[in-house]
Amino acid sequence: MSAPDEYLQEFGNFAIRLADGARGQTLHRFRDGAAVFNKAGPFYDPVTDADREAERVQREMIASVYPDHGVLGEEFGEEEGKGPWRWVLDPVDGTRAFICGTPSWATLIALEYEGAPVLGLIDQPFTDERWLAYGGRCVYSRGGKERDCKTSGVTALEKARISTTDPLASGYFNDREAAAFEKTAAAARVARYSLDAYAYALLAAGELDVVMETSLQRHDWAALAPVVEAAGGVITNWRGDPLGEDDRGEALAAATPELHAEALAQLKI
Amino acid sequence: MSAPDEYLQEFGNFAIRLADGARGQTLHRFRDGAAVFNKAGPFYDPVTDADREAERVQREMIASVYPDHGVLGEEFGEEEGKGPWRWVLDPVDGTRAFICGTPSWATLIALEYEGAPVLGLIDQPFTDERWLAYGGRCVYSRGGKERDCKTSGVTALEKARISTTDPLASGYFNDREAAAFEKTAAAARVARYSLDAYAYALLAAGELDVVMETSLQRHDWAALAPVVEAAGGVITNWRGDPLGEDDRGEALAAATPELHAEALAQLKI
Repeated sequence: MSAPDEYLQEFGNFAIRLADGARGQTLHRFRDGAAVFNKAGPFYDPVTDADREAERVQREMIASVYPDHGVLGEEFGEEEGKGPWRWVLDPVDGTRAFICGTPSWATLIALEYEGAPVLGLIDQPFTDERWLAYGGRCVYSRGGKERDCKTSGVTALEKARISTTDPLASGYFNDREAAAFEKTAAAARVARYSLDAYAYALLAAGELDVVMETSLQRHDWAALAPVVEAAGGVITNWRGDPLGEDDRGEALAAATPELHAEALAQLKI
Repeated sequence: MSAPDEYLQEFGNFAIRLADGARGQTLHRFRDGAAVFNKAGPFYDPVTDADREAERVQREMIASVYPDHGVLGEEFGEEEGKGPWRWVLDPVDGTRAFICGTPSWATLIALEYEGAPVLGLIDQPFTDERWLAYGGRCVYSRGGKERDCKTSGVTALEKARISTTDPLASGYFNDREAAAFEKTAAAARVARYSLDAYAYALLAAGELDVVMETSLQRHDWAALAPVVEAAGGVITNWRGDPLGEDDRGEALAAATPELHAEALAQLKI
């Protein structure tokens, strides 16, 4: 067991507490949607409220229990720590899902050791689903029951279920990326959209086989990589390099190394 | 109270029993997804199994309780009745959602009186959500709690949340329809995809504002119309005529008459 591994179970339990803390700020604001458009008075934005209040709660918990740990959060930026550990927080990934009432937004929590994510948690409060990965193991829990997660084992694109968040929106794919996605999706068996981080969680659960996206920032992908990898999948950028090593925020996740290689080959156009 | 109305509460309670009966055949087959690809031996298809077994159970229940009622089901076709009532069944709407593990597939149940849908039920077993509409009222229930459903009240496309199931798949939109959808989506505030019948349920709940689709058959839309209309929305085909009066299976649902008129105007290209 290497030095950081011995702490991961403790940090995993703490990540669960962070996810519970976020739920307390997000869940009751979800499906309050009609209020977004109908309330009189000052502008009402439940997503921003949920994001900010959840991150505030999470930062207080970290400062109280692990004052030496750094924090990088979507809402309140970076707070440097005094050691090798840094938490990366995105309390509501999938703002569009949140305001449209679809239960595919998620709370993302990652823990980095010397700059590399070593623990990831994806939480969907409405469906009461949680994926927690560290130390080479990914555990899915719902309704108090737990089971190990494994990707599907699909090795050929023609049998694959593929997903991206928005194939049409401007400002998401550029022209090259849109063409690459359409080519890859056309070679796959079926495509599903608009799932945000939930797509990577379904890939870890063996329900989707390829996820392709761009425009991801560190707080978007830091929690996804440990979940996908611990479940047996592969995740890189669209050139096959580690996530974060391009300026487009590209991510390509696949259930198996063979499928990842085939999808990667489609992108070389 | 007109003649059929006095029976609707009884038939509403029976529709709930039909939905429960379907859940017994669908829910345990959902998220068994890895098995689709990994099981050895004869081809394994949990969606087809769920669809067939659920419709079989539902037909037995109807024949036992209301032997004079007709039945039209996706799997086993039409059985003519002896009176004005006919049940229209689609036990698993959203096959692609089902095999990709996304909880947006639904069990659809409609009751027609002399050929017109007067009762609609949309059930999502995994999230434990149910929309039941008849007699001008739409009720949402989850976890034993009920509340009345109302559409959002959004009247302008620029503020609208729009949805369609698959904007890219071949064999779904034709070129004219794809162009019309893209134009309408570009004028809207945000778009979400891949929701199948769940999109109409979210529209009834005030969470989406416009849903545009084609290729719907009677068992797809018969349950949706009562739900959307009882919640205050408007649903027609893409020419503004009643559903079913075109050969493309087009549906355009909107939260308000004003929004419906604006979306309809976009389609005249």
